[in-house]
Amino acid sequence: MRSSGFEAPRNMAKPQKEQRPEAQLPKGFRDIEAGEIRAMADMLARIREVYEIYGFEPLETPAIEYTDALGKFLPDQDRPNEGVFSFQDEDERWLSLRYDLTAPLARYVAANFDRLPKPFRRYAVGPVWRNEKPGPGRFRQFMQFDADTVGTDNVAADAEICMLAADTLEALGFQHGDYVVKVNSRKVLDGVLEAIGLGGEEHAVRRLTVLRAVDKLDRLGIEGVQLLLGAGRKDESGDFTKGAELAEEQIGVVLQYLTAEGKDGAEKLARVGEIVGKSEAGAAGVEDLTRLLELCAAAGYPQDRIRFDPSVVRGLEYYTGPVFEAELTFEVRNEEGQVVRFGSVGGGGRYDDLVARFTGQRVPATGFSIGVSRLQAAIAARGQSRPQEGRGPVVVLVMDRSELPRYQGFVKQLRAAKIPAEMYLGTAGMKAQMKYADRRGSPCVVIQGSDERVRGEVQIKDLIEGSRLSAEISDSKEWREARPAQFSVPEAELVSAVKSVLARHGRG
Amino acid sequence: MRSSGFEAPRNMAKPQKEQRPEAQLPKGFRDIEAGEIRAMADMLARIREVYEIYGFEPLETPAIEYTDALGKFLPDQDRPNEGVFSFQDEDERWLSLRYDLTAPLARYVAANFDRLPKPFRRYAVGPVWRNEKPGPGRFRQFMQFDADTVGTDNVAADAEICMLAADTLEALGFQHGDYVVKVNSRKVLDGVLEAIGLGGEEHAVRRLTVLRAVDKLDRLGIEGVQLLLGAGRKDESGDFTKGAELAEEQIGVVLQYLTAEGKDGAEKLARVGEIVGKSEAGAAGVEDLTRLLELCAAAGYPQDRIRFDPSVVRGLEYYTGPVFEAELTFEVRNEEGQVVRFGSVGGGGRYDDLVARFTGQRVPATGFSIGVSRLQAAIAARGQSRPQEGRGPVVVLVMDRSELPRYQGFVKQLRAAKIPAEMYLGTAGMKAQMKYADRRGSPCVVIQGSDERVRGEVQIKDLIEGSRLSAEISDSKEWREARPAQFSVPEAELVSAVKSVLARHGRG
Repeated sequence: MRSSGFEAPRNMAKPQKEQRPEAQLPKGFRDIEAGEIRAMADMLARIREVYEIYGFEPLETPAIEYTDALGKFLPDQDRPNEGVFSFQDEDERWLSLRYDLTAPLARYVAANFDRLPKPFRRYAVGPVWRNEKPGPGRFRQFMQFDADTVGTDNVAADAEICMLAADTLEALGFQHGDYVVKVNSRKVLDGVLEAIGLGGEEHAVRRLTVLRAVDKLDRLGIEGVQLLLGAGRKDESGDFTKGAELAEEQIGVVLQYLTAEGKDGAEKLARVGEIVGKSEAGAAGVEDLTRLLELCAAAGYPQDRIRFDPSVVRGLEYYTGPVFEAELTFEVRNEEGQVVRFGSVGGGGRYDDLVARFTGQRVPATGFSIGVSRLQAAIAARGQSRPQEGRGPVVVLVMDRSELPRYQGFVKQLRAAKIPAEMYLGTAGMKAQMKYADRRGSPCVVIQGSDERVRGEVQIKDLIEGSRLSAEISDSKEWREARPAQFSVPEAELVSAVKSVLARHGRG
Repeated sequence: MRSSGFEAPRNMAKPQKEQRPEAQLPKGFRDIEAGEIRAMADMLARIREVYEIYGFEPLETPAIEYTDALGKFLPDQDRPNEGVFSFQDEDERWLSLRYDLTAPLARYVAANFDRLPKPFRRYAVGPVWRNEKPGPGRFRQFMQFDADTVGTDNVAADAEICMLAADTLEALGFQHGDYVVKVNSRKVLDGVLEAIGLGGEEHAVRRLTVLRAVDKLDRLGIEGVQLLLGAGRKDESGDFTKGAELAEEQIGVVLQYLTAEGKDGAEKLARVGEIVGKSEAGAAGVEDLTRLLELCAAAGYPQDRIRFDPSVVRGLEYYTGPVFEAELTFEVRNEEGQVVRFGSVGGGGRYDDLVARFTGQRVPATGFSIGVSRLQAAIAARGQSRPQEGRGPVVVLVMDRSELPRYQGFVKQLRAAKIPAEMYLGTAGMKAQMKYADRRGSPCVVIQGSDERVRGEVQIKDLIEGSRLSAEISDSKEWREARPAQFSVPEAELVSAVKSVLARHGRG
């Protein structure tokens, strides 16, 4: 509720001409209006239902955490807010806005470890903040929807996360063939790197360059990756990206890995097993993924839904085992009108060291995060959103201001019947009131002037039908005579008459 | 989704013994767990339904705004974050986390004025942040649920806000007599202050002291207020609060105002009209409130639901007309075990100058804000929350790790029937698995060892019934022989057997 103390907020000064603030948002932030909020709420409810059916429980952590608990060290002096929004508390300790939902989960588990069921399975949905350069479709506040299983290294937990991702997309209306959950393992990637002699701390930077190249397979194709593994690659704009400068033989191994063939995941993984050779990590990764795919296949998720993909890397350093990427594979037109695949709408993986940051005790964990805004964009692109027309409230017009209590009474009857309704609360005339109802997306308005009042009647004007007819009837005389989509009923029939209009348009 | 770029978040270092962060939240922040989240979601859905029925549309604004747009000036150097959490953007402009939902609404309306329907009616729900000293039940992040009508000075809009508050409380299960919406007007208070010669800028500080005293009528009674209007008051702990030092005659007028008698609001207001005398603001305030109460009474909200109360002040400086306070009047025990009235769960009022801060153009507005956490505490105190027992997932135990695909198949059948279910994903034995199911609040577990598997059966163990029986049966031999609440069914009957257990406990 608004503060009833007298101390805050202060400085809420009367308007002063000299120093009026601008009514604008900082770059990278945006307002979300009714249509999008409703579509989003529909979507979140469907995701939530799947997560609950899977046995995940909700958890909410606050927006603000200690910076060091989130795993960022103190911002350096040159760039005080790099990547995250940070500020000092009164005791000078650094606070940050969360940049994802995983770091707060690790802090929560570490703080409450003893009393939690193990494994601990939670979902979370909410905004996160990134202090990064905003761009088209790239905001500094956006929403994530995560599910994680913490406290087990059982690969069945990873398999289940993949099934969850697939089932979530189906619950949102995407069909087999519209999407795929791609799976890989950091251990497999480590195995390949070891196999080409890039194990060990001294090769850390070079390993990253190789992984970056592998990650680009989707966008650049095998030739592009080959260039990035070697000397480097010039893109269409002429920009040159320096490569990993691997030897021919090393490049050959990586390409063999990326193009491993087989009739199914198991066969491909067997081939990858040969490539990683004696690498212990590599062999463990291959075994994990083989079991993961077995579990998925047995549960009815064949490889058109959940599939091994050697090019999946996932950028975050903290992944330690299987990594997942949920991709929409159908085609849409991008902003330039080109036909492209929609691409990634979520991802995740196994991270076994995040809780240990706090406690020193290893707590294995695996999870998945949906990019809610991208998923919503995909749903909109597929035309799967609910139409918004006529979803506004019924508006009772004010024809005579001395009759407000009477109009308010009509509104009350409609509301009691669970029909969204309101009396026009402005002070303008009939024409502005009709325009208001149009803007609100009202299905109909209720009108009672003095003539109708004397007769104990109300007029109902169907705005959806009216707008359809007005597009059809061009003659304005004919229009006025027909008075289309407008009819009178006794006051006592107000609610049933409005219901009949709503029913006509598939509402109520 | 989690970032797939390689740049953020960095510094997610491997655990280092020397500098482990503590797993703790900053003071004044808290985690919210499943039971509370579910109760909260129930409550928010009911509030949302009432607001939608009233014709309010949802709007979401971001957490971060320009500090000056929120109406706070730059933080001074001594206390950089007073009242709000603030930090500088890369271009050095100050940003703040919103401290309420009203200031962002004013910014939104100013920025989008031309294209909005007028009046503009929106609701908003979300967290707000206050950089204040936390205390018991007082957090630095909490949730508000607001409804506002912007762009009309029609007192019918204020009346409707009061009805909305009353209907919201009823939708949450509070009955006539459990609550009251108290109404006053800043103009009436201004009139009283003018009547005792405290009009004009030169008396601004003194006026505030008088209003503070009036605001305390509920807590201190009329004698306490009398002292605070005079020399001052010493409380039980011996602390002295300096008073407004009004003359006897002035005090008499204020007390007359606070104790105005009458059979209903109209009569009381007529009496107040005499007290404010020639004050133009006072007369206008009395007229507003008279019409407001007329509208409420005509719509079926008599004074046991919406009532004039001369002691309602509301702390915020920006109110310009009617002010509202929703109070729960039933008694509960406080932390010290004393019986007290629950008190305020929301408030609001008319604020006609907030949009003009940006545009210079007056845009009258009125609104109401619910303190979601306090309201939830009230619902819990009344025992109106849904019980949580047995609301967890059905757990399929893992008796034989080579049979994971089979257990996963059971889970899949249950989920397909919309029954929350999971396979135990940890790696511990039977006893720990049963403990896990207990902790998760599972209604039952599904067990299949090798014996049952050979027979093509599963065992269902009803944990709710089991825990009831185990409290009744004290003899452990008798217990083992009875194997209460546990039965076998053929695999094909798994889903229907689980459904029968759920039905037994009122679920599904």
